Amino acid sequence: MTSHWEDFYATHLPPNCFEDNRSLLKEFCDRHYKLKSHIVLVTSGGTTVPLEHNTVRFVDNFSAGNRGSASAEYFLEHGYAVIFMHRTKSLEPFSRHFTGQQLLDMLELHEEGMSTTITVKPDSVDVLAPVLDKYKNAQETHRMLYITFTSVVDYMWLLRAACESLAPFERHAVLFLAAAVSDFYVPQDEMPTHKIQSGHGAPTISLQLVPKMLAPLASLWVPHAYVVSFKLETDEALLIAKSRESLNKYKHKLVIANILQTRKNRVVFVTPSTNYEIVLTKDQALSGLEIEEPIVADVVRRHQDYIREAEQPAHQ
Amino acid sequence: MTSHWEDFYATHLPPNCFEDNRSLLKEFCDRHYKLKSHIVLVTSGGTTVPLEHNTVRFVDNFSAGNRGSASAEYFLEHGYAVIFMHRTKSLEPFSRHFTGQQLLDMLELHEEGMSTTITVKPDSVDVLAPVLDKYKNAQETHRMLYITFTSVVDYMWLLRAACESLAPFERHAVLFLAAAVSDFYVPQDEMPTHKIQSGHGAPTISLQLVPKMLAPLASLWVPHAYVVSFKLETDEALLIAKSRESLNKYKHKLVIANILQTRKNRVVFVTPSTNYEIVLTKDQALSGLEIEEPIVADVVRRHQDYIREAEQPAHQ
Repeated sequence: MTSHWEDFYATHLPPNCFEDNRSLLKEFCDRHYKLKSHIVLVTSGGTTVPLEHNTVRFVDNFSAGNRGSASAEYFLEHGYAVIFMHRTKSLEPFSRHFTGQQLLDMLELHEEGMSTTITVKPDSVDVLAPVLDKYKNAQETHRMLYITFTSVVDYMWLLRAACESLAPFERHAVLFLAAAVSDFYVPQDEMPTHKIQSGHGAPTISLQLVPKMLAPLASLWVPHAYVVSFKLETDEALLIAKSRESLNKYKHKLVIANILQTRKNRVVFVTPSTNYEIVLTKDQALSGLEIEEPIVADVVRRHQDYIREAEQPAHQ
Repeated sequence: MTSHWEDFYATHLPPNCFEDNRSLLKEFCDRHYKLKSHIVLVTSGGTTVPLEHNTVRFVDNFSAGNRGSASAEYFLEHGYAVIFMHRTKSLEPFSRHFTGQQLLDMLELHEEGMSTTITVKPDSVDVLAPVLDKYKNAQETHRMLYITFTSVVDYMWLLRAACESLAPFERHAVLFLAAAVSDFYVPQDEMPTHKIQSGHGAPTISLQLVPKMLAPLASLWVPHAYVVSFKLETDEALLIAKSRESLNKYKHKLVIANILQTRKNRVVFVTPSTNYEIVLTKDQALSGLEIEEPIVADVVRRHQDYIREAEQPAHQ
């Protein structure tokens, strides 16, 4: 039995700093509402399911945040204001291009007498400058808000708070739900307080189903928004059927379906009336094109059509 | 029942690139053996336990890699050659000081006519220069080898390979096993091929105990090395007893015990004959001192004593 989403909020406390994040979301959305911006909520990265109250161990979902962090950049290029709600320490827009020690490798130290300067090596400037330029631009125009979550409970609270602030945008808001949210969790009252001890033999972890928040989200919280969910499978045979099942159940606009092993080169757009692929050719992939560029372009095109639909008088 | 460590290797294949990593380890150790370096293996970050062959979900251990990555820097300052064996995308020495977009925030873009340069802002140079200097020095002297793992199986294979290459150092090698290694795993033959489907209700995950590799490590692989293990608990009442139990069982040199909530300010050194605390005062913590600095200083002092013990003729 699926537990109901209202029970989930009633039995799980909001995360630390929840009220701060809620204020940030409200302030960001109010400002962009006045500016008549188009706005997108991009969720990104995996959620954790803690196995202990003092968490040492947790179940995690595979996601480095590639899809979400890249998509956030492209939405920005299309003029959208972006709420980037991501897993702590998952990839972020802009900095995602340089991981680990790559940025340090680009730097050069110059000591002249008492004065020290640090510059980027000339042959790295070409790579770094365009990214840095876009990053500075996003900052100066205040078009990106960063919000972080760790556990599936954090995510649920922040998702609902974001929806509250996005509701007034009606059709002008996109929800691009790329985060890999756990389907399962360990209820608070079944969780041990301390680290599970290995001396007592190997434990069995009993999980419960997380309620599907897409249900209240699409029908109650932001019923007019352009809601896009993702479906990740490892078995091609299930992909389209499960995507269509989700659309039928939640009545949202679009499922972007992908297979774990090929997700960087191929996705399937599943809408209520059709499905079609977006595929990168080998040459495109080699030239550095990211599949998130055509994905976001297509979502933006569909979103703009969706806005226009409401503006035009219906034909008889 | 604990399964035996030999069975574990017999039933779990080595990770991709295992032979490459093994060669890197051998080459690094051979070179530093000839240079008569002191050497340390620092393991860092948590291991994953995949729940599916095509892994979407996994159990993870809490660890960002703070302890390991900081300690690696301090061992380097004490003149050691360092094998830094860490979880993919966990914190790394040097770059750990700048997370997310912090480095991008330090950069300034200058466009003059056709020429673009990027420099570090003058007020960030003081923070960045000392770290960059140490990073460049570690690179130029080839005293740091980076090896990465993700799953607990990867970790086990790489740990044994590192020990093979470290064995000739005898007392001159330190093993500083700071990684948070899972006690549990899902055996290969009980793992489903595809993503667990939520439609069939919530799953129960049955875990088995991972064999304690400290047993063959301390008694067979590197019997003369200075082996340091870590014990992380959330319950103070268990901390010392469990550490001492571990020392009695595996006969290694030192357990560094810590409590999840206070681990950045307090650890307990537990040796076969004594135990004592290393604690940061509030002032020390505020001034930016990291507890890994005194931890590593103490381990190095003990290691040097241990080397000298063997060099002096025994007193009657």
